[in-house]
Amino acid sequence: MDWADGFIAADWGTTNRRAYLVGRDGALHDEMEDGKGILSVPQGGFPDAVADLRTRLGDRPMLLAGMIGSNRGWVEAPYVAAPAGGEDIARQMIWPEPGRTAIVPGVCHADGQAPDVMRGEEVQIVGAVAGGLVPPDCLLCHPGTHNKWVELRGGRIAAFRTVMTGELFNLLKTNSILADLLGSPARPDEPFAAGVQHSLGEDDLTAELFSVRARILLGRGKPKEAPSYISGLLIGADVRIGLRMRSEREVIVMGRPELTALYAAALAIAGCRAREVDGERAFLTGVRHLAERAA
Amino acid sequence: MDWADGFIAADWGTTNRRAYLVGRDGALHDEMEDGKGILSVPQGGFPDAVADLRTRLGDRPMLLAGMIGSNRGWVEAPYVAAPAGGEDIARQMIWPEPGRTAIVPGVCHADGQAPDVMRGEEVQIVGAVAGGLVPPDCLLCHPGTHNKWVELRGGRIAAFRTVMTGELFNLLKTNSILADLLGSPARPDEPFAAGVQHSLGEDDLTAELFSVRARILLGRGKPKEAPSYISGLLIGADVRIGLRMRSEREVIVMGRPELTALYAAALAIAGCRAREVDGERAFLTGVRHLAERAA
Repeated sequence: MDWADGFIAADWGTTNRRAYLVGRDGALHDEMEDGKGILSVPQGGFPDAVADLRTRLGDRPMLLAGMIGSNRGWVEAPYVAAPAGGEDIARQMIWPEPGRTAIVPGVCHADGQAPDVMRGEEVQIVGAVAGGLVPPDCLLCHPGTHNKWVELRGGRIAAFRTVMTGELFNLLKTNSILADLLGSPARPDEPFAAGVQHSLGEDDLTAELFSVRARILLGRGKPKEAPSYISGLLIGADVRIGLRMRSEREVIVMGRPELTALYAAALAIAGCRAREVDGERAFLTGVRHLAERAA
Repeated sequence: MDWADGFIAADWGTTNRRAYLVGRDGALHDEMEDGKGILSVPQGGFPDAVADLRTRLGDRPMLLAGMIGSNRGWVEAPYVAAPAGGEDIARQMIWPEPGRTAIVPGVCHADGQAPDVMRGEEVQIVGAVAGGLVPPDCLLCHPGTHNKWVELRGGRIAAFRTVMTGELFNLLKTNSILADLLGSPARPDEPFAAGVQHSLGEDDLTAELFSVRARILLGRGKPKEAPSYISGLLIGADVRIGLRMRSEREVIVMGRPELTALYAAALAIAGCRAREVDGERAFLTGVRHLAERAA
């Protein structure tokens, strides 16, 4: 089975998985997404769940990234310690089916007071570096359920910090006293900018969240502005944490476009240029780079 | 129906209600609690839900506090604007059943950049002042789902700020990636103190929450210490917000003893003496004070 004839790459997370068929030409030939995240796979069920991907996309070699390599996944792929680049990650892939199926390891940063881990994001970062989408030395922001601020040095992941912004926004939206205000999506508009400004200047996030509700009850705030303002508060606090890691005039923001637009707007308010990079494009470049080294 | 012969007082919240029978002697004769919060009462169902309390505790006049007076409750009792004391609140009670059933209004603070509201807490505060449990001029901390920092001046609520600490802790415990670490209660122990210290010194709450998980994954943190450490992070951030409102050497902490112990410990770390006041005792003193004025 020759990787050069094409392969399958999957980003296999906790609650869902996305898989791509990359052709001999390196282009994307097919893709699929379903709810078979690792938590939905019964014990001993991974070989079948993997075979199911081949049934749907073709009998090709396969590169699996994300939580599939965690201690709750199929086979644990131990974290590669930062600094870590594409070569380090490729060398430490785990092979549940030798020559045929590889699991990409995550990266950990165990130095200092804020140890951190990533699993899945490293593929996009490897791709962004390998494809020249980002400079080899930069501060990179990778929003998602958990935003990652990543410091690249010499094209390798040197240090990083995770901020729970996306997850907190979802918790507030789903179950909190603010839930009825968070029915519509946040946009990079004026209320968003006001939220960012607030968090850049004031360190009172857990109180200001309640003020949103109080203002509305007192007729001093508009419910329709709440999603953007609350998102701005959380992302403003996030940006402040990221820029403390390494002060930069330009930051690369990589991920889904609707999220990178919010972070780019917040960074602009904080005085930074933000350059947006599409996360899916970086992912595909990353899996091609790793597949060449898997062959 | 004479209030002096005894009355029923209820703290009627969103998801549950607690009711007390106060006798002619001012002592607590009976009490009950159930899950009939305002959201569980069908439209037009409040007269029956109120009658049900009288069936269980006796046919007495009744004083209702909490969300029962909100726009989602029985009859809306508009907020009394701060500065507000016991006399102001008693004067603006609403009477759905004249002479027989009164609803206590909440208090709002509409000045400045952080408008705020309370509904229910004012009864305990009125009681604490009326019963001499707190000095007429002080900073008072009232933990709960939403912690309130209250500035008292001349025995009246002059200003206050709400922090969503309790609700955020519950959201993290119920639905987040940290949920499996939060199975046991927080205690004012060493990990709690470390969390408080962290938040008093660093402004990175939404990142440090994830670090708790990363440390454990990397073998550098103990899962059993997580509930106290995470509670310490949230309460430390909360105390920093409160002490910015008014710098005090002594703070009164009023509420349920298991919560006041945590806030008292955090305040001590921040260099403040904390004096704990039992919230239920203050509530009963408050309803007696208001009932005398309702009579």
